[in-house]
Amino acid sequence: MTQRSCRFGIRLSACLLLCGALAGCAQPGGPAVQRYGSVIRLKPEKMDEYLKLHADPWPEIVTRLQECHVRNYSIYLAELEKGTWYLFGYFEYTGSDFDGDMKTLAADARTQAWWKLTDPCQIRIPGTPDGEQWLPMKEVYHND
Amino acid sequence: MTQRSCRFGIRLSACLLLCGALAGCAQPGGPAVQRYGSVIRLKPEKMDEYLKLHADPWPEIVTRLQECHVRNYSIYLAELEKGTWYLFGYFEYTGSDFDGDMKTLAADARTQAWWKLTDPCQIRIPGTPDGEQWLPMKEVYHND
Repeated sequence: MTQRSCRFGIRLSACLLLCGALAGCAQPGGPAVQRYGSVIRLKPEKMDEYLKLHADPWPEIVTRLQECHVRNYSIYLAELEKGTWYLFGYFEYTGSDFDGDMKTLAADARTQAWWKLTDPCQIRIPGTPDGEQWLPMKEVYHND
Repeated sequence: MTQRSCRFGIRLSACLLLCGALAGCAQPGGPAVQRYGSVIRLKPEKMDEYLKLHADPWPEIVTRLQECHVRNYSIYLAELEKGTWYLFGYFEYTGSDFDGDMKTLAADARTQAWWKLTDPCQIRIPGTPDGEQWLPMKEVYHND
């Protein structure tokens, strides 16, 4: 499996960090939040496996995300055309070094083992940058 | 234009309210949050118009959403196939009467005027329930 430097749009991170800093909702007493939306296809024949994994994720995966300042992370599923399913991810980053935290996440052995199970369930969308798994989406509206 | 009772998955609201209550992230001193994800197509020829509207939304629209307890509302844009664009909405509901608040929103004259501009930019996805505009998505994972 090719090693990835990032799963969450690291190439866009400099721009998104700036946008996030400008548009982020400051939490009382906490840092500004940067929001990230991304998308990928789900293989229909792997749907059961993917849903089962995410209904009961490994505790270390959850902990590692939290350690890397990934918060309020949701994944949604939708069938956009008959038999064609997509996953949409939304999360908030509350740290101060997105690139660094994403590298830490990518270097974690348990996270790599998790991705080894989830990657084969997914189909990368044309246009997804090399080295990334999910396609970063563009935020076109936000209301706190 | 057909009058809609709801834009945000009102038919699923009873189930989602329960799920939200069970899975919602309690805010310190505030009510539990229910999360909603939804999706719709964007007409490429209307993209400029849609983006322009959302880059500078009418203040009353923003205020009315807040009055109806819609918070942390983001809309993302992605091209999933060449020339085929989708909008993904994510928001959090912090009130205690989702159906009632959505009806209030749908009855608001300025909101109706806004939708009269945004509806023609969009293509409803097959499977979207009658009376709704955006297709509700299924949450398959959440990590606070």
